[in-house]
Amino acid sequence: MKRKICVVVTARPSYSRIKTALAAIQDHPQLELQLVVAASALLDRYGAAIEVMQREGFVPAAKVFNVIEGDDLVAAPKTTGLGLLELTTVLLNLKPDIVVTVADRFETMATAIAAAYMNIPLAHVQGGEVTGNIDEKVRHAVTKLADYHFVASESARERVVRLGEEPESVFNTGCPSIDLAREIADQIVNEPGFDPYERYGGVGARPDLSKGYLVVLQHPVTTEHGQAREQILITLRTVDRMGLPTLWFWPNVDAGGDETSSAIRGYREKHNPAHIHFFKNMDPDDFLRLLLGARCLIGNSSVGIRECSFLGVPVVNLGSRQERRDRGPNVIDVAYDEAQLESAIRRWLESPRPPRDTVYGGGDAGKRIADLLATVPLRFHKTISF
Amino acid sequence: MKRKICVVVTARPSYSRIKTALAAIQDHPQLELQLVVAASALLDRYGAAIEVMQREGFVPAAKVFNVIEGDDLVAAPKTTGLGLLELTTVLLNLKPDIVVTVADRFETMATAIAAAYMNIPLAHVQGGEVTGNIDEKVRHAVTKLADYHFVASESARERVVRLGEEPESVFNTGCPSIDLAREIADQIVNEPGFDPYERYGGVGARPDLSKGYLVVLQHPVTTEHGQAREQILITLRTVDRMGLPTLWFWPNVDAGGDETSSAIRGYREKHNPAHIHFFKNMDPDDFLRLLLGARCLIGNSSVGIRECSFLGVPVVNLGSRQERRDRGPNVIDVAYDEAQLESAIRRWLESPRPPRDTVYGGGDAGKRIADLLATVPLRFHKTISF
Amino acid sequence: MKRKICVVVTARPSYSRIKTALAAIQDHPQLELQLVVAASALLDRYGAAIEVMQREGFVPAAKVFNVIEGDDLVAAPKTTGLGLLELTTVLLNLKPDIVVTVADRFETMATAIAAAYMNIPLAHVQGGEVTGNIDEKVRHAVTKLADYHFVASESARERVVRLGEEPESVFNTGCPSIDLAREIADQIVNEPGFDPYERYGGVGARPDLSKGYLVVLQHPVTTEHGQAREQILITLRTVDRMGLPTLWFWPNVDAGGDETSSAIRGYREKHNPAHIHFFKNMDPDDFLRLLLGARCLIGNSSVGIRECSFLGVPVVNLGSRQERRDRGPNVIDVAYDEAQLESAIRRWLESPRPPRDTVYGGGDAGKRIADLLATVPLRFHKTISF
Amino acid sequence: MKRKICVVVTARPSYSRIKTALAAIQDHPQLELQLVVAASALLDRYGAAIEVMQREGFVPAAKVFNVIEGDDLVAAPKTTGLGLLELTTVLLNLKPDIVVTVADRFETMATAIAAAYMNIPLAHVQGGEVTGNIDEKVRHAVTKLADYHFVASESARERVVRLGEEPESVFNTGCPSIDLAREIADQIVNEPGFDPYERYGGVGARPDLSKGYLVVLQHPVTTEHGQAREQILITLRTVDRMGLPTLWFWPNVDAGGDETSSAIRGYREKHNPAHIHFFKNMDPDDFLRLLLGARCLIGNSSVGIRECSFLGVPVVNLGSRQERRDRGPNVIDVAYDEAQLESAIRRWLESPRPPRDTVYGGGDAGKRIADLLATVPLRFHKTISF
Repeated sequence: MKRKICVVVTARPSYSRIKTALAAIQDHPQLELQLVVAASALLDRYGAAIEVMQREGFVPAAKVFNVIEGDDLVAAPKTTGLGLLELTTVLLNLKPDIVVTVADRFETMATAIAAAYMNIPLAHVQGGEVTGNIDEKVRHAVTKLADYHFVASESARERVVRLGEEPESVFNTGCPSIDLAREIADQIVNEPGFDPYERYGGVGARPDLSKGYLVVLQHPVTTEHGQAREQILITLRTVDRMGLPTLWFWPNVDAGGDETSSAIRGYREKHNPAHIHFFKNMDPDDFLRLLLGARCLIGNSSVGIRECSFLGVPVVNLGSRQERRDRGPNVIDVAYDEAQLESAIRRWLESPRPPRDTVYGGGDAGKRIADLLATVPLRFHKTISF
Repeated sequence: MKRKICVVVTARPSYSRIKTALAAIQDHPQLELQLVVAASALLDRYGAAIEVMQREGFVPAAKVFNVIEGDDLVAAPKTTGLGLLELTTVLLNLKPDIVVTVADRFETMATAIAAAYMNIPLAHVQGGEVTGNIDEKVRHAVTKLADYHFVASESARERVVRLGEEPESVFNTGCPSIDLAREIADQIVNEPGFDPYERYGGVGARPDLSKGYLVVLQHPVTTEHGQAREQILITLRTVDRMGLPTLWFWPNVDAGGDETSSAIRGYREKHNPAHIHFFKNMDPDDFLRLLLGARCLIGNSSVGIRECSFLGVPVVNLGSRQERRDRGPNVIDVAYDEAQLESAIRRWLESPRPPRDTVYGGGDAGKRIADLLATVPLRFHKTISF
Repeated sequence: MKRKICVVVTARPSYSRIKTALAAIQDHPQLELQLVVAASALLDRYGAAIEVMQREGFVPAAKVFNVIEGDDLVAAPKTTGLGLLELTTVLLNLKPDIVVTVADRFETMATAIAAAYMNIPLAHVQGGEVTGNIDEKVRHAVTKLADYHFVASESARERVVRLGEEPESVFNTGCPSIDLAREIADQIVNEPGFDPYERYGGVGARPDLSKGYLVVLQHPVTTEHGQAREQILITLRTVDRMGLPTLWFWPNVDAGGDETSSAIRGYREKHNPAHIHFFKNMDPDDFLRLLLGARCLIGNSSVGIRECSFLGVPVVNLGSRQERRDRGPNVIDVAYDEAQLESAIRRWLESPRPPRDTVYGGGDAGKRIADLLATVPLRFHKTISF
Repeated sequence: MKRKICVVVTARPSYSRIKTALAAIQDHPQLELQLVVAASALLDRYGAAIEVMQREGFVPAAKVFNVIEGDDLVAAPKTTGLGLLELTTVLLNLKPDIVVTVADRFETMATAIAAAYMNIPLAHVQGGEVTGNIDEKVRHAVTKLADYHFVASESARERVVRLGEEPESVFNTGCPSIDLAREIADQIVNEPGFDPYERYGGVGARPDLSKGYLVVLQHPVTTEHGQAREQILITLRTVDRMGLPTLWFWPNVDAGGDETSSAIRGYREKHNPAHIHFFKNMDPDDFLRLLLGARCLIGNSSVGIRECSFLGVPVVNLGSRQERRDRGPNVIDVAYDEAQLESAIRRWLESPRPPRDTVYGGGDAGKRIADLLATVPLRFHKTISF
């Protein structure tokens, strides 16, 4: 009898991150995939990840609409609470053997608690990392609820063990997002290979990309609530002023998400920047192709730390959001400051591309995760190791 | 301006445990108490803690009915999810400066997440202990969400620090439940000082207590779901056979709670045990008086490990529920086995009372917690220490 | 392609009422049954209707645990709110062509709103009746949300039309509960045909039933909250005093349910009545057999008005709960008053059995409902007729 | 002791409608206002009614964030379910003597059920009207749950009585929205009296309003889900083509709301219409001033039927949304058809302004409602009148 593996995906970036593991689970002879799609992964204004999944061959076993509106700190806990109520019913009906939760978004706590309280073994992908924001509270709390840990780097493995988890329950599989990067990296270099304007629409200028371009992806920082507007404006002003062809991506949903989005919208309507095109979202592999062709990625997304280290894409990383995460030689860190930001971008424009780095794995994480899910002993009872 | 301290109490045993801290907060010149009463603390069939609180001078700022019915593992996560939804609204309206969550019951996770996600500093009372059941997952996860840790013993303090919390955020205050024990211990010895049958009703035989008596308090173990019935029957048969005057307390609410309760009810109706009286609940100080006068406490409650160590009451502790908790010389541990259980009870009947022990503090925890709440720097931003 | 018919059953009495329609839907060549089991129908302490359903060949398509605890008026709206949240997700995933909701329990409003708001055609079984309690608000509100009305009597049909529903959407099918009564009535008369003590356990005396017996089924009345205790005690004292063999059934869940139950439990433990046996629940057909053999049914259940009119079972109906419902010649109405109650019981003991009556249909309601569900035009858009 | 009157406001248009009643309750010597603000009334992207209320002197007693995201039919029932869960807790804590619910938006059902199930007398403002969409199901269902009915016209009064409500519980107070219209109408004619661009920002062209202008307010129709896009485009194309100065208002939240909004946004970005300015929202009295100065209002908002009849503002009413509502001589009804629409607009441009009409009351509804709330007998028990 196949083990039923229930993976709960709650956001578009989480899908990108776990996609190769989903495929490997689906293809594994001893596993049956139960894909649950919830939260912003179902919503158009966060990129309708559900449609991407279906297009890429995944059929959801259940959908849970649980995003509660509110541009302040109320939305995150309530969305988690509603998710917990409903995911319990979903797990009751699906009866999985193992539940998999991905990374550290606030609403992943709902998945973790539902599984832990229902005595279903829980696997956590991407624990043990350090960032210094609310994600960190979430991430380590999920570690304490999880029974298996599929971590993305050696320092993450050590940290999970130091948190009191039994070493034999912690596996450094590398990060599944690198799997995708490896596929892309082997295909093409230095050009997107498609017309992003035509394929993804979006709004704003349509600068010529053939001489090189910047990519921007900047999320609000939940613990710096109230500063999101100013933080995004610094980047908008700097990048606009530099006048290079730029592809800008809207941020994902979070407390503060609306503040960032509305600042971008306001800036765009007022200044109509002549070299910037804005995208709502993009299929993960197209996004990676764009990054691979970029002169520099600017922002605070983990993609800069993670996929870009493997791809060797230059990154200017802003502020505290990726603080203390493992990083390769492709990252320059700067504060939210126009001068620092411009100077760092210019440095990359004048430097050679950084070498590839495997700090987040070698590109076989999805397959390794599936193999582990097929073989780990089923258990939900653990105790701290010290 | 006074700091507003919101304490969320979700169950009768948690109230007993935090009571002296509530009083100290209420009396503190720089603090304002916001007491939120939720979950089983509002329900008659779990002892209506709300009425005890009101009788003892505490006025709730809000009530949240969030217990969802179901005798299986579905009730715990859904109760937590609903609690999270509603506590968010409560915190939004009360706007506390610090939220306090108590111990490790499953639904305390709702309090912890609401505060953490709303960027309200969170204090956790009684983290860092070890038990080896689902409570442990909850307890350590709450530690990773909390900003201040008021722990009950030195080994707990060390464990919280090892979990990556900054040492200056971890305070060994001792356990507030010991405060109550100290008051009682100073008052009387070796007799309850009241007629428990008259004051608390209950059902069953009314044995003469003047020659000594046993007390039983045994909870279901959530990770051993499905075994609760047999575990309680072992104790029922053994204690019934021994024929000593016995005061038996119904367990609290948990997944499996109904199974234990119905096993007790079934046994009682079938065998009508001649020396056992059954109580639904009791005011905490009367309960401590009863314990102080007992020949032995039997069961798996933390009161045996904690208050009884300070009071020097002999305890026979059953099974894994208190596994690895600090304990004094007053505890004999046994498996769920009739022969072992009887032999351990007999050993205590023939031994002198054990000495007092201060492993869980010296009886001033409530006051120390209030003083700390008045003085700790307000912050909700932390990162792991390693 | 078969029409998918989603029937939501939320309580044991509703199941009894709709059972023959469920069977007819399941057997219908053009229909596919989607049975959703929710609320107290899932809970042991309300008779675990789910187990009866499964035993009788129905496989639930989804289960929803949504009963929130609280012995006061808070539990009913919150249970409905949680039901609405979760039934929406269930309907989203099941995609039925028509949703069927049964009768007028408070939580049926969740089913009705979910379907109406999701633009799924809604059929309501048993609208148009009059009772004068909270059920009436619910019942008529559901009528205003429903697209088809399968009513149980001619006066109910007229009332639904007067409420502004288009006459061609209102069908007097008779009540499905009569279908079951017809089967039973054709089988046996004047004896249960089984040993209820052996088959259903229960507690209390085991009076000899061979010389005739009474049956009692009395529910709390939600709008008379706070009086439930006294109302049940009147019946307990009267029936106990009369000393006839009596089979007593616990009431179902409602705000106040616990009050009634605890009054019964308290009376039983104090007085240990010598001629009364107490049952938690019974399969519907066994229950009807018991009624058919009874000298008299006492209480305020609709079974007295409905099934008993077809069966010709004498009934003493208490208080306002069935006020203004259609009734046959088998009902004597009395107030909550010991003298009136005793006198009415004695009158039936001395009178011949009343004749059968078809005010609630001729026993083919289930089949007629299924046929209508297969043929009514699918629509969810309506307007008031005046 | 003052009667506590809890009014639940869930949306910006409902606030406008009930505002004078809120003021009259607040000023009434025997009443205490408990204002609960919920759902889209709290959200920026639906006009942040909460801020308007606070600016206008109302202090909310509680806030409930219960809008669940999803651009399809899932959001409406779930938002209602969550509202029901939380409003129950709010009412439990506020303990009002009467609850007031306004009109017929889907989420008002949450208020109605919470009050009805908690045995709190419920007053419904604006029942008895006819529209032929989902609002109608909601409106009449709320009527069946309500104990007092404050209706806005004589035909509404008759309809509520025909629905089986006791005539002495139904009061034709007129519509409170007319109160505001009366104040405005007495102040100024034929010019807004303020610069709407400066005061409210918004986006798009800034046509000169001094020679007359059109106003557009068109909502999606929930039962015509899927057609919202085409329906709004018909109006966009027609109005754009006519080239008159136009002030366009975004629609409110509903299933389908996002579809309409995104169609407007898409049209605007593609065609950049030269004579149209777009507003997100406006204070109700400024909005009425704008209407008073307009050549014609186009759309399907009830403001055209209601306030504009009293103000004598010409209206072209589109489609079924206001079907069968009472209307004065100021309304021309057309289908969603460009030719019909243009022709009707032209007719108004060439005709004199219609006379004032009092079908919706004389402008003292707020005061009359407050007086009734102070004097109606408190009761929550009713039965259908036939």
